[in-house]
Amino acid sequence: MTPQPSPVSRTHQPNPEAGAAVKAADRAHVFHSWSAQELIDPLAVAGAEGSYFWDYDGNRYLDFTSGLVYTNIGYQHPKVVAAIQEQAARLTTFAPAFAIEARSEAARLIAERTPGDLDKIFFTNGGADAVEHAVRMARVHTGRPKVLSAYRSYHGGTQQAVNITGDPRRWASDSGSAGVVHFWAPFLYRSRFYAETEEQECARALEHLETTIAFEGPGTIAAIVLETIPGTAGIMVPPPGYLAGVRELCDTYGIVFVLDEVMAGFGRTGEWFAADLFGVVPDLMTFAKGVNSGYVPLGGVAISGKIAETFGKRPYPGGLTYSGHPLACAAAVATIEVMAEEGVVEHARRLGAQVVEPGLRDLAERHPSVGEVRGAGMFWALELVKNRETREPLVPYNATGEANAPMAAFAAAAKAHGLWPFINMNRTHVVPPCNISEAELKEGLAALDAALSVADEHTE
Amino acid sequence: MTPQPSPVSRTHQPNPEAGAAVKAADRAHVFHSWSAQELIDPLAVAGAEGSYFWDYDGNRYLDFTSGLVYTNIGYQHPKVVAAIQEQAARLTTFAPAFAIEARSEAARLIAERTPGDLDKIFFTNGGADAVEHAVRMARVHTGRPKVLSAYRSYHGGTQQAVNITGDPRRWASDSGSAGVVHFWAPFLYRSRFYAETEEQECARALEHLETTIAFEGPGTIAAIVLETIPGTAGIMVPPPGYLAGVRELCDTYGIVFVLDEVMAGFGRTGEWFAADLFGVVPDLMTFAKGVNSGYVPLGGVAISGKIAETFGKRPYPGGLTYSGHPLACAAAVATIEVMAEEGVVEHARRLGAQVVEPGLRDLAERHPSVGEVRGAGMFWALELVKNRETREPLVPYNATGEANAPMAAFAAAAKAHGLWPFINMNRTHVVPPCNISEAELKEGLAALDAALSVADEHTE
Repeated sequence: MTPQPSPVSRTHQPNPEAGAAVKAADRAHVFHSWSAQELIDPLAVAGAEGSYFWDYDGNRYLDFTSGLVYTNIGYQHPKVVAAIQEQAARLTTFAPAFAIEARSEAARLIAERTPGDLDKIFFTNGGADAVEHAVRMARVHTGRPKVLSAYRSYHGGTQQAVNITGDPRRWASDSGSAGVVHFWAPFLYRSRFYAETEEQECARALEHLETTIAFEGPGTIAAIVLETIPGTAGIMVPPPGYLAGVRELCDTYGIVFVLDEVMAGFGRTGEWFAADLFGVVPDLMTFAKGVNSGYVPLGGVAISGKIAETFGKRPYPGGLTYSGHPLACAAAVATIEVMAEEGVVEHARRLGAQVVEPGLRDLAERHPSVGEVRGAGMFWALELVKNRETREPLVPYNATGEANAPMAAFAAAAKAHGLWPFINMNRTHVVPPCNISEAELKEGLAALDAALSVADEHTE
Repeated sequence: MTPQPSPVSRTHQPNPEAGAAVKAADRAHVFHSWSAQELIDPLAVAGAEGSYFWDYDGNRYLDFTSGLVYTNIGYQHPKVVAAIQEQAARLTTFAPAFAIEARSEAARLIAERTPGDLDKIFFTNGGADAVEHAVRMARVHTGRPKVLSAYRSYHGGTQQAVNITGDPRRWASDSGSAGVVHFWAPFLYRSRFYAETEEQECARALEHLETTIAFEGPGTIAAIVLETIPGTAGIMVPPPGYLAGVRELCDTYGIVFVLDEVMAGFGRTGEWFAADLFGVVPDLMTFAKGVNSGYVPLGGVAISGKIAETFGKRPYPGGLTYSGHPLACAAAVATIEVMAEEGVVEHARRLGAQVVEPGLRDLAERHPSVGEVRGAGMFWALELVKNRETREPLVPYNATGEANAPMAAFAAAAKAHGLWPFINMNRTHVVPPCNISEAELKEGLAALDAALSVADEHTE
């Protein structure tokens, strides 16, 4: 018999005492990511379902963040919960050197969906170690040391991954010696190339990249690592032709092309992978998050035939205890099956085009704080600005404290309207579950409308 | 109602067709850790329970490896399986910035057991990223760049962690620039210090370390990272006074002392942490594996008050999507409760002393291939040698193929007797689940006895 989710997940009675106990133990013992531990005040969350979560005081929030952009099928999908329960009963864990049904089946279902011949799957625990291993594969495959990656990017929190990252989270760990060179990728709204059209931005960005390759030395470069669509850095959809151009440069110079789809993959853009939007096939593709909606920690690298062959007779020098963890893989199998059966990818594409994009463009028209709207599927960014003409961001780059007050006020207003917003610097991202309903989207857009009125007060 | 594990886990009827399908999908799509993909032949495993697992042909094996030394409570413990099922039904995942009951409770139970004031818990997905983050904390806390670690060690497979590692798995990824300096830790059986007694080895190892610190420049060293008892590298129990001496050196020179208890922690040595065997308190302690027996991927860093304070008003520059994953934390809560209720730690200590140690010493007396027996609790190594006088290893360091044939023959013999052995270079480790029964231990020792007769054939 299939165990059923308990009714606990369906109720959200206030229980402030329980919340206080959870909060007290958290403050005493939990050390939180990316935070000054004494300056944070974590909300105690009691439960979640679908596109909503709720606290112990009975407040419910519509989640426009999908956690950290990973619950692509929403919270507590009953079929995936049941699959986890069944796999737990069957074989919750087993070492990576063995063939295990859930592991094989997850690899098969992923390989079926990845573009081109990315048919071998190396499983990791998350996105950061996926990037770490992709870089190692590229280095060993080419025998070259360097990695090129973009400013305005995020690739994970471990030492190699964060050094590839092109946002401020890198700075404290920048070893200045990781063999990483940063270049500028296309982003017309804040062009580094003085471009005025997408065509110009694309051509100049490719010229910039090729010149960088030439001056770094093509024979020293193992890999170019790009998020297909950069995520936390701002959901900058690359112009037509850019990724194909990078593919061509990689072919010309024998460089491994790594696309990081940790955030953009598994339905987020209205395609199984964002690479499908551009018809581009990388040599290595990293994934995590959406692969099983983060129900159990899982990430991985999809590997082309050519690179897999390098490690045919020669050992791949990397691994981890939980590679291909059966419970995590069973959650991936169920998630992929649910996404296929319920048409989640198509749903994200359709509602992205029919509800999110027109809704956000309408907000942009009515709110002077909105500088640009961009995205695809359920992956959208609003660039908030002080002034639409100058495009000066609503808050400075990497602002904290008082300097960040306008964005803090915007976030507080959204929450007061029952919406939990995704905030990064001067942007809010609209990244709800890919299976969110039209009614929920409209509820969220209405809350954004109210919150943007607060942001508008900071325009000039 | 608590869901119960399905009876699937209790049967092991042969089903070779199902096994062939699992194997075929594995060979087509799964890329395995640390392996030449075309040269491996992964056994398809159908199920596991307690100290045993079985394949699809009806062969059952007694697991003297605990997976990769992580299933400290054995496979499919019903209480932990039920806890995973319940948490899956309640709230399987939630983002790291929130206070969540399973997360708070796991942190509290871990902090209750860690030595000294290691009372703040930063959760990761496994051991490698725990080490990555511990090193970052030490570097930011001290403002110094270098890390000292030992040859004969393993700290994980990501770039920073593998560069700290002191075994051949480092070589392919050695960036020569990770700020890591390797030194020699004590190991009397293969002393680098020409020592003849444990006292001499200890004193000279400490003198070696202090001289290394002096010549590297004390003010450049952020951390000394040691496995409390090195694991895969050979279970070399440090001599009395060594770790206390390192603690003193760290205090003298303002260096952060990091103990890696990913393998040695959570009952493995017959104590909650191996540090308890020596009465030593580090500044940071990494864990994974035994914290929840690997039922769901989880690792972490236990942080002293002093270092937590550094990140009180200043953000800790690191994080990850699945930090404090509720499902993983719920498995940790249940595992720790089971270990406490069932006296698993005491059981490992008692049977280690009363059954494993005398059993292994008896084997050593009767088999000329056994050069040394060492360990504690359920954490033992047999050093296999060609010649007891010269101590020449049964196979050369990092041997493969024909050069490794004697160890391969030993392993095959163990498997033929129903025992799955842990093999690393010229050693076999006896690292069964910490709650293994006396009868199972005796069954395993008998199989080892038979397999050692094969190893004996390669002595001279």
